Amino acid sequence: MKLTSGVSQLVEALRCLPGIGPKSAQRIAFHLLEHDRDGGRQLGQSLTFAMENIGHCKSCRTFCESEQCDICLSAKRQDSGLICVVESPTDILAIEQTGQFQGRYFVLMGHLSPLDGIGPMELGLDIFEQQLRSGAVEEVILATNPTVEGETTAHFIADMCAKHDVSASRIAHGVPVGGELDLVDGMTLSHAFSGRKKVN
Amino acid sequence: MKLTSGVSQLVEALRCLPGIGPKSAQRIAFHLLEHDRDGGRQLGQSLTFAMENIGHCKSCRTFCESEQCDICLSAKRQDSGLICVVESPTDILAIEQTGQFQGRYFVLMGHLSPLDGIGPMELGLDIFEQQLRSGAVEEVILATNPTVEGETTAHFIADMCAKHDVSASRIAHGVPVGGELDLVDGMTLSHAFSGRKKVN
Repeated sequence: MKLTSGVSQLVEALRCLPGIGPKSAQRIAFHLLEHDRDGGRQLGQSLTFAMENIGHCKSCRTFCESEQCDICLSAKRQDSGLICVVESPTDILAIEQTGQFQGRYFVLMGHLSPLDGIGPMELGLDIFEQQLRSGAVEEVILATNPTVEGETTAHFIADMCAKHDVSASRIAHGVPVGGELDLVDGMTLSHAFSGRKKVN
Repeated sequence: MKLTSGVSQLVEALRCLPGIGPKSAQRIAFHLLEHDRDGGRQLGQSLTFAMENIGHCKSCRTFCESEQCDICLSAKRQDSGLICVVESPTDILAIEQTGQFQGRYFVLMGHLSPLDGIGPMELGLDIFEQQLRSGAVEEVILATNPTVEGETTAHFIADMCAKHDVSASRIAHGVPVGGELDLVDGMTLSHAFSGRKKVN
C-alpha cells in the first residue's frame, strides 16, 4: 500500500484511541489533513500538554494539573464532612451532574483485584486512611460499581471506616427509575427486593 | 461541571475528530490519561508533525511529505501512459488494493461545485492540463464518484482530454459483484441496463 510514512504513522498513532479500527483511523487522518488542519494542530498540542502535565489531585486522586482539584479546594465541600468513594473520574462527572451531592470525592482509579496485583496501596487507600484518621470525615458514601470487584472493594473500605469509627453507607441498588420490571436482570431484581422500604 | 482546564481542553479538542461526540471524547480522554499515556504522547507528536509537514505531491496532488509521492516517482508507472483521475486520496488506496491498475493517479481533492466556489483551478486542473499537453499521457481513466457532481466533473475533464487529443474512459457502473438485484437501487440498475455487454 502506498501511504507515505508521515500519513501512515498518523493512521497508526490514531489506532491507540479506543474503538478506532484501521478504517476509521484512515478516515480520521484524511479528514484532518483535508478539512481541519487547525483542529488537528490544536488536538496535537492539547494531547502533548495533557500527557505531560496532568497528574492526580493529592487529596482525591482525580485528574488535575495543579496539586489539588477545585472540589477539594472548596471550603464548603470540606465542611460537609462527606466523602464519596468512586472507581473513576468519570463517575464524579455523573454524580456532579445530578447536583445532589455537596461533599468531596475519593477516586480509587480501579478496584481491588489481587490477581492483577492491585491491592489497597495501588488504590491509594493509605491516603484515604490518613483522611479518616484526621477526624474531618463524618460519613463515607461507597459508590463503587455494583460488580463483584466493586462490592469487594466497598466491603474492604467499610471495614476500614469501622476501624476508625467513621460511618459508611453504600448507594442503593435496585430497579432504575423509568425501567420496566420485565427487562431488569435477576440480580438487580433480587437487590431491589432485599433493599425494599416500608411505605406505611 | 468540574473538569480541570487541561482535561476539558483535551475533551474539547478531541471533538474535532469526525464521529466523536461529547461522551466519546470524554471516554477517550480518560482512557488515554489512565491507561495509555505513551500512545497519547505518540499521537500528539504524529498529529503535530503531520499537520505541519504533510503537503501535496506536485504531480498528482495526493498527500505526501516530500515533493513527489512514490507512485509518481516510479518509472514503470510513468511509462504506462495511464492516468486515473480520482476525487480523494482514499480512492487511491482502494484502487491500489485491487492490484489491477499500474498507472499514475491525479487527485482532484473534491469535485466541481460552482456554488461553493470550487472551479477547475481549485481542483488543480491547470496542473492536469499541463500533463496532458506534455504528450506523456495516452489514456485518462475517469474514476470520480458516480454522483451528479462526480459525473459533471468527469464530463468536464473528458472535454479537456478531447481538446488535447487524449482518449478518456469512464469506469463501469452497474450491479456490484455479489450484490442481489432486488437490493440494488433504480439508478444503478438503469446504469447496468444501458451499459450492458453482448455475450454472444
